[in-house]
Amino acid sequence: MEFDTIAAISTAMGEGAIAIVRVSGDEAVEKVSRIFRGKDLTQVPTHTIHYGHIIEPDTGRVIEEVMVSILRAPRTFTREDVVEINCHGGLVSVNKVLQLVVSQGVRLAEPGEFTKRAFLNGRIDLSQAEAVMDLIRAKTDRAMNVAINQMEGRLSRLIQRLRQELLETLAHVEVNIDYPEYDDVEEMTHSVLIEKAVHVRDEIKKLLETSKQGKILREGIATVIVGRPNVGKSSLLNSLVQEKKAIVTDIAGTTRDVIEEYVNVRGVPLRLIDTAGIRETADVVEKIGVERSREMMQKADLILLVLNYNEPLTEEDEALFAAVSGRDMIVIVNKTDLPEQIQMERVRELAGNAKIITTSLIEDEGIDELERAIADLFFEGSIEASDLTYVSNARHIGLLAQADMTISDAIDAIYSGVPIDMVQIDLTRTWEILGEITGDTVHESLIDQLFSQFCLGK
Amino acid sequence: MEFDTIAAISTAMGEGAIAIVRVSGDEAVEKVSRIFRGKDLTQVPTHTIHYGHIIEPDTGRVIEEVMVSILRAPRTFTREDVVEINCHGGLVSVNKVLQLVVSQGVRLAEPGEFTKRAFLNGRIDLSQAEAVMDLIRAKTDRAMNVAINQMEGRLSRLIQRLRQELLETLAHVEVNIDYPEYDDVEEMTHSVLIEKAVHVRDEIKKLLETSKQGKILREGIATVIVGRPNVGKSSLLNSLVQEKKAIVTDIAGTTRDVIEEYVNVRGVPLRLIDTAGIRETADVVEKIGVERSREMMQKADLILLVLNYNEPLTEEDEALFAAVSGRDMIVIVNKTDLPEQIQMERVRELAGNAKIITTSLIEDEGIDELERAIADLFFEGSIEASDLTYVSNARHIGLLAQADMTISDAIDAIYSGVPIDMVQIDLTRTWEILGEITGDTVHESLIDQLFSQFCLGK
Repeated sequence: MEFDTIAAISTAMGEGAIAIVRVSGDEAVEKVSRIFRGKDLTQVPTHTIHYGHIIEPDTGRVIEEVMVSILRAPRTFTREDVVEINCHGGLVSVNKVLQLVVSQGVRLAEPGEFTKRAFLNGRIDLSQAEAVMDLIRAKTDRAMNVAINQMEGRLSRLIQRLRQELLETLAHVEVNIDYPEYDDVEEMTHSVLIEKAVHVRDEIKKLLETSKQGKILREGIATVIVGRPNVGKSSLLNSLVQEKKAIVTDIAGTTRDVIEEYVNVRGVPLRLIDTAGIRETADVVEKIGVERSREMMQKADLILLVLNYNEPLTEEDEALFAAVSGRDMIVIVNKTDLPEQIQMERVRELAGNAKIITTSLIEDEGIDELERAIADLFFEGSIEASDLTYVSNARHIGLLAQADMTISDAIDAIYSGVPIDMVQIDLTRTWEILGEITGDTVHESLIDQLFSQFCLGK
Repeated sequence: MEFDTIAAISTAMGEGAIAIVRVSGDEAVEKVSRIFRGKDLTQVPTHTIHYGHIIEPDTGRVIEEVMVSILRAPRTFTREDVVEINCHGGLVSVNKVLQLVVSQGVRLAEPGEFTKRAFLNGRIDLSQAEAVMDLIRAKTDRAMNVAINQMEGRLSRLIQRLRQELLETLAHVEVNIDYPEYDDVEEMTHSVLIEKAVHVRDEIKKLLETSKQGKILREGIATVIVGRPNVGKSSLLNSLVQEKKAIVTDIAGTTRDVIEEYVNVRGVPLRLIDTAGIRETADVVEKIGVERSREMMQKADLILLVLNYNEPLTEEDEALFAAVSGRDMIVIVNKTDLPEQIQMERVRELAGNAKIITTSLIEDEGIDELERAIADLFFEGSIEASDLTYVSNARHIGLLAQADMTISDAIDAIYSGVPIDMVQIDLTRTWEILGEITGDTVHESLIDQLFSQFCLGK
C-alpha cells in the first residue's frame, strides 16, 4: 500500500537521557536528510547509524546533536522506510526536532499509526498489533509473557488453525449442498460436521477458560483493603508496597489526577483502585464511611478485609462481612503479636469459604502466606503463563464468546436435523467472527478505533 | 582509561513506544550477544542495527523483540563500545531486559555515568557535560540554544582562550622573576601584565553580566501572581497557560508531590512556584492569607500584582504594594471592560518604576502587552540568545565571580607595586579557577558530585 510520511516522538515524555523522533514512509530518509548536517543520509546503506546535527535549514542554526538510524523497507517496524532520530532527551529539543521534521512536509502521526501501518502492510495481524500495546502496558512478568506470546503469533496461529478447520468443514457442506443426490456424501458430511464443529467449539471454550486469568494478568486484580480504623490497613499496604514492587502509572495520556498503583504479588498484579491514590484507599473507611467503601467493594475483584486480633469483633466488622458476602475475599487477622481478644470461632463463621490469614505486620509475619493466598485464589492449579496461550483482551474475549454461541447453534442445528444450508450460515458466521480477532475480516472503522487507543509514537 | 561495563535504561520512564537499554564498556557487545538471538553481534560492523530477540539464556524463553544498535569505540557517546537495545517501551519488559544484561555481569550505571565517561575519556569537557544535562532540562527554545552552544564548546573555547592568555602572562612574570637583573624586561612585564590582566578581567565581567539572564533561561523566572480575591488572578493564569505553552515536569526523580509548572512567554520561562501546584498559587491570597503570600513573594524573581479596574483601591491592595516594594514587579489593572472605579493616579504612585499594564482578560485584551513587558524586563536590549555565550550554571557563575576577585586582586597588586611573585599567586589562582569550569583543574569528588545530579541512563 501507499501512505504519506509520518512522524512522532516515540519515547515516553519526561526527562530521559535519550528521546527518539521516529519517521516512517517513502520520503522519510529524504525529508530528514534536509535538516541533517553530516553524511548524506540518502546515500548510506540500510540499518546503519550516523552521527551529526539537526539544523534549521534556513539559518543553519544547530538544534540538536543526534544519532540518526536509517532503516529501509521492508525490514522495519512498519515495512516502510524508517528514520529514527536519537536526541539528547530534553522535552524542548525533541519537540523542536519534531517540528523541523514536520516543517519539511511530514505529517504528525496519530496514536498507534506506526503499528497500524505494520498491520496494514501485512507485517503483523491485528491480535499481534494489540499485543504490542499490551506489552507496553504490562505490569508484571506474567502479563509480559502473555503479550510476548501473542505478539509472536501464538494466538493468531491457533485462531488460523480453527478457521482452517471451519473452512474445510464448510467445503464438505458445499459438496453436500451441490450434490445432494449422493446419499453417502451426506452421511459422511453429517458425521464429519459434528466431529469438526465439536472440536472447534472445545478449542474456543478452552481459550475462553483462560480469559479470566488472562484478563487479570492484563488489567490487574482490582483490590480494596477494608477494615475498621487502626486494624493495620496502612501497614498491610506498606508491607505490600514497601518491597518496591509498586509501579505507578498515569492512565494513557490523561491528567495526573488519575493514577493507578500496581503491586506485583508473585506475578499477580494487584491494582489498587482509587483515582485519588493509594493513601485514600487505605483509609477508605475512616475517610468516607462504610457507604463509600461498600461502593468501592462492588467494583473490586478482591477484597482484603482486615480485623484486629487484639480486640473483640464489633458491629462494624460484622457489617463489613455482610457487605462483602459472596465476593472473592481474604480475611486478615492482624496484630497476633498482641494478646488474643478476637473471637476466632466467630471470624471463621463469618469468613465462610474465604481464607483466613493471621498476621503480625509490625513483626513482618504472615505476609508470605498472604501473598501465596492471593496467588492461589487467582491461579489455582494454573500452568506457568509461558506455556499457555492466554486470552486477555476484552475484544478477543467478546468475539470468542460470540463464536462459541454461533458454533453451538451450528451443532444444535445439526443434531436437530435442520436444513444443511442453515448450518452453513452458522459455521460461516463463526469463521468470520474468529477472523475479526486476527483482523482478516475486520471493518476499517474498527481498525481506526482500535489503533487510536495506542500511545503516540507507536 | 579502563572502566567496567555499565548499563541503564536511557529513555524516560513511562508508557512509550520505544525504550532503550544502553550498555557501555569493553564487554558491552559480548555481554549483550549472549542474551540475543539473531545475528552474531560480535561479528557485525560498527554503527549498524540488528533485528532479533532478547532471550533468557538458560531457558531460551523470548523476553522481547528488539532492534540492537552496535556502536564501537571511539565514535560513540562515551568513547567506549556502546550497545543500545531498542525495546517495545513497556516498563516491565524493559526492566526485564536490563535485568538480563546485568545478570551477564554488567554493572548498573549510576546517574550521569555515561556522560561522566564521555568526560573522563576526553570526548567532552566538564562544561559541555553540564550542558548535556541543561539541554535535557531546558524548558524553552532560548534555554535550549544556550545549552546547545555550551555543548558545542563555545563557553569552553572562551575559557580556554582566557586561560591561555593568563598562561602567557605568567610566562612573562616567570622571566621577570628568574632574570630580575634585566631592567628593561621588568618594564615590559609590568605594562604587559596590566594590559593582559585587565583584558581577562573584562572578559570575565562580560560573562558574568550574561549570568543573570542565563540563570533565568536555565531555571525560569520564579513567578508569583498576587492580588485580592476576584481581581482576575485565575484568568491571568489561564490566559498565560491556555495557549498550551505550559510544560509540567517532575523535579529530577522525586515524588509526584513536587511539581513545577512552566509557562513559556516569548522564550522566557516563567516558573510558577508552589509545590502544591499552580491552582493554589492562583488563589494564594484567599487560601493562605497575605502572610503566606508575602513569604512566597520573597522567593520570587517576578511578582505579577493584579488590581481590579472596576473597584476602588483597598487597604489590602496598598498592603500588597508595600510588601513587594523594591522587587521586580508588573502591575496589572484588570477588567477594563467595566467602568473605571480605581484611582489610576494612586496606582501610578504606588507602582513607582514598575510597568503598569491594563487588561481585560475576559476579552483577551492586554495579554500581548503583558508578555512583551515580561520579556523586556528580563531581556532588555539583549541580543538573540543564539549569538551569545550565556553563563547559566550556578557553579560556573560562582567560579567566574571568584576568578573576577582574584584577577582584580592581581591588578590592584600590580598598581600598588607589591612584589611580582605575589601577583603571580593571584594570576595562577585565576588560571586554576577558570580551569574548574572546563574540568581541567577539578577535584575527583566534585566530579562525582556533579554527575550524580544527572538523570539515570545519561
